[in-house]
Amino acid sequence: VTSLAADLARVVGADHVVAGADAGPLADATEARGLVPGRPAAVVRPGSTAEVAAVVRHCCAAGLAMVPRGGATGLAGGAVPTGGEVVVELGRLRAVRRFDPGLWRIEVEAGLPVAHLHRLAREHGLRFGPDPGAAEQSQVGGMLATNAGGPHAFGLGVARDWVTGVEAVMPPGDVVRAGGPLRKDVAGYDLVGLLVGSEGTLGVVTAAWLRLEPAPEAAVGVVAACGDAEAGCAAVLDVLAAGLRPTVLDVLDEGATAAAAGAFPLGDLGTPAPFVVLAEAEGSAGEAASGAAALREVLAARARAVVVASTPAETRALWRWRDGVSLAVGAQHGGKLGEDVAVPVDRLADLVRATRALGARHGLPTATWGHAGDGNLHATFLADRADADALERAGAAADELLAWAAAAGGTVTGEHGIGLVKHGGLARQWDAPTVALHRAVKRAIDPAGLMNPGKKEP
Amino acid sequence: VTSLAADLARVVGADHVVAGADAGPLADATEARGLVPGRPAAVVRPGSTAEVAAVVRHCCAAGLAMVPRGGATGLAGGAVPTGGEVVVELGRLRAVRRFDPGLWRIEVEAGLPVAHLHRLAREHGLRFGPDPGAAEQSQVGGMLATNAGGPHAFGLGVARDWVTGVEAVMPPGDVVRAGGPLRKDVAGYDLVGLLVGSEGTLGVVTAAWLRLEPAPEAAVGVVAACGDAEAGCAAVLDVLAAGLRPTVLDVLDEGATAAAAGAFPLGDLGTPAPFVVLAEAEGSAGEAASGAAALREVLAARARAVVVASTPAETRALWRWRDGVSLAVGAQHGGKLGEDVAVPVDRLADLVRATRALGARHGLPTATWGHAGDGNLHATFLADRADADALERAGAAADELLAWAAAAGGTVTGEHGIGLVKHGGLARQWDAPTVALHRAVKRAIDPAGLMNPGKKEP
Repeated sequence: VTSLAADLARVVGADHVVAGADAGPLADATEARGLVPGRPAAVVRPGSTAEVAAVVRHCCAAGLAMVPRGGATGLAGGAVPTGGEVVVELGRLRAVRRFDPGLWRIEVEAGLPVAHLHRLAREHGLRFGPDPGAAEQSQVGGMLATNAGGPHAFGLGVARDWVTGVEAVMPPGDVVRAGGPLRKDVAGYDLVGLLVGSEGTLGVVTAAWLRLEPAPEAAVGVVAACGDAEAGCAAVLDVLAAGLRPTVLDVLDEGATAAAAGAFPLGDLGTPAPFVVLAEAEGSAGEAASGAAALREVLAARARAVVVASTPAETRALWRWRDGVSLAVGAQHGGKLGEDVAVPVDRLADLVRATRALGARHGLPTATWGHAGDGNLHATFLADRADADALERAGAAADELLAWAAAAGGTVTGEHGIGLVKHGGLARQWDAPTVALHRAVKRAIDPAGLMNPGKKEP
Repeated sequence: VTSLAADLARVVGADHVVAGADAGPLADATEARGLVPGRPAAVVRPGSTAEVAAVVRHCCAAGLAMVPRGGATGLAGGAVPTGGEVVVELGRLRAVRRFDPGLWRIEVEAGLPVAHLHRLAREHGLRFGPDPGAAEQSQVGGMLATNAGGPHAFGLGVARDWVTGVEAVMPPGDVVRAGGPLRKDVAGYDLVGLLVGSEGTLGVVTAAWLRLEPAPEAAVGVVAACGDAEAGCAAVLDVLAAGLRPTVLDVLDEGATAAAAGAFPLGDLGTPAPFVVLAEAEGSAGEAASGAAALREVLAARARAVVVASTPAETRALWRWRDGVSLAVGAQHGGKLGEDVAVPVDRLADLVRATRALGARHGLPTATWGHAGDGNLHATFLADRADADALERAGAAADELLAWAAAAGGTVTGEHGIGLVKHGGLARQWDAPTVALHRAVKRAIDPAGLMNPGKKEP
């Protein structure tokens, strides 16, 4: 037993520390990026906020870097150690501290699985809006660290929009609490917003107060099969211009559709694989039906076919299918390198075209899908996992795509975060004074640079 | 002409500088608080972001403090100089830089009146959700500086929720741009959120990208007259528990209703003055009508009468009346000292009771109204403006109310900000480590303390 392990065991108990050779490496859901996880000095699993604070205090006093880690479903390496850090796993902090369904609010610990939160809300006629992928594995803390979104974020907002308070441990081990079961508070700077999306580089979120809202009575999915990306992206803009307000406005390009078409639950998508627009209307049963009819009418002008889910089960099946698209695409060639750039929505078709042009230039198939209404697409370059040259070309194509998105007035990451894999990406989209402000915030809060070092670097 | 005036005139032109004895004092909408505006060193009215940057650069180089100032409708003294500062008025920056109605977005400069923004959106079938008071005078920059809300914030969110990008001048004169016409971006720390609500203490917001959304086809106001505060506050919780989602869920207690009853546009509120619950349902014409009917049914269980607006004109008249409540209350006794505390919504009735008990103890009438669904009430102590003793007692009562709200798990300010008048309030609701984090952010961004000094102090 190392001295570090013994020190940490005094804080959290020996059962909850793994150190030395047993401790790693620890990957996440990033793939095909040449990201080799480092070996942590130790993995520690605190069981309470006080234990998290004691761990952070110990590490800060000893000058040890920390990596907060949730369900490890991240797509940017944000929870992956680079080597020598103490990994702080939050999975034991999974209590629902308080749930007031009649008041539309809940306080949960960081390690609660996101799917558990969704189920609890649903069982009480409520909902938590964001629906990022991998909900069974991902944890609330990780969802907040990346300010995650998902398909329903178009209509319902991203994680930040649902957080009214956070508890976090900040260096050198202080517990801070900003907000709470409060829907409005303008007294202090927006520390909630600062922590949400900070990827563990400022502190460790241990719990959060979330707002919920009544679930709609009904939701109806709508699928439009368009002949090409131009038609599909124009259809997305048509929906906005028509003043419709779907909760989901996603697309799948032909490459993504082709990979997933076999499992499509609402009939046959046709041949060749279409460019698909997916939308959802919600409200009372009547509102959802009329909303879906309005979507059908607008989308039909650009589509070769439009299907409206005819039962709630069909709509649920549609979203399960949608959730599996990423896996289906990855299964095609074994490897994929996907970005999550976002652009102003009028640049959507340009983004699809740019992805294809980069794929063609680097000799790689592409698949692009995502949250079209938010201008946020998972633009993906496919490669054989065993083909080192193809993987390298995929890396080059992805890198060029980030530059393209920044030049188009967009962002290098709309929902996954910078993590390790987009190191340097922020400086592509922000000018020097804005990057300097980002750095000043980091330096002020984590002057020793011990919180998740190497992540979210401009 | 002073040397300062000459220096500033070189930046913005002599027509846009007032210095020396001509320059002040400059009040805002705070009243009865013993807040004596200081005399600024100069008032400068830059005409562009570049001129704002040049002014900030000049002031930072000379060690001069600055007070950014919009429409001066603030209720916390946030735009009031304390003495010797350079007041930077944003009113000349009033351009709509870009408006893409079909894409639900607009870029406006900080000095644009809020009412102008609302009108522009409305003319294109869109809306900007927050509706803080004094919209004709207040400016977008001030609305963002305070993260303002208003009645519709219950259903539609506060200012922060509608900002996708900001342009701001930060000390020592750098222009930063975070976000833009983008609906999602998680690359950098949330600098948009940090600037919104910062009350001009970090930098000067010069422009913002705002998201808009399609306006609903219809909105129907509902008014419930309840016998007392207990019934009215219980009715508010009933609406939540019933899973209804009104866009507005306001209350007026008997004191507030009595002051405004004469102008009530939908008939007679009855005698004695009731505790009123105001709500609004929206959607298609049918949805708004059925939503209003559902609100009527839930509210009726606790009310002596419920009135549903029968035409769009009646609903509009209802909100005009609501907008006038603050003035009507103030006119009763000449002076008033109103807070804008917010509490967890289950403490709503306690907040009304606490306000009354404090009024009784200090021998002052009270009136309380506001955004009940958000737990955010304007709890107000009334006094004769010429009665110095009563004004002093009002100050004492208000101060005790802030302490009460903080102890109840609430905030000393739900939408007006700390400004000057709630100096020290943040330390009442946040513990020492959280306040230290607030201070660290300020110090990192404005190390010389030149941005709106004395405001938003913990």
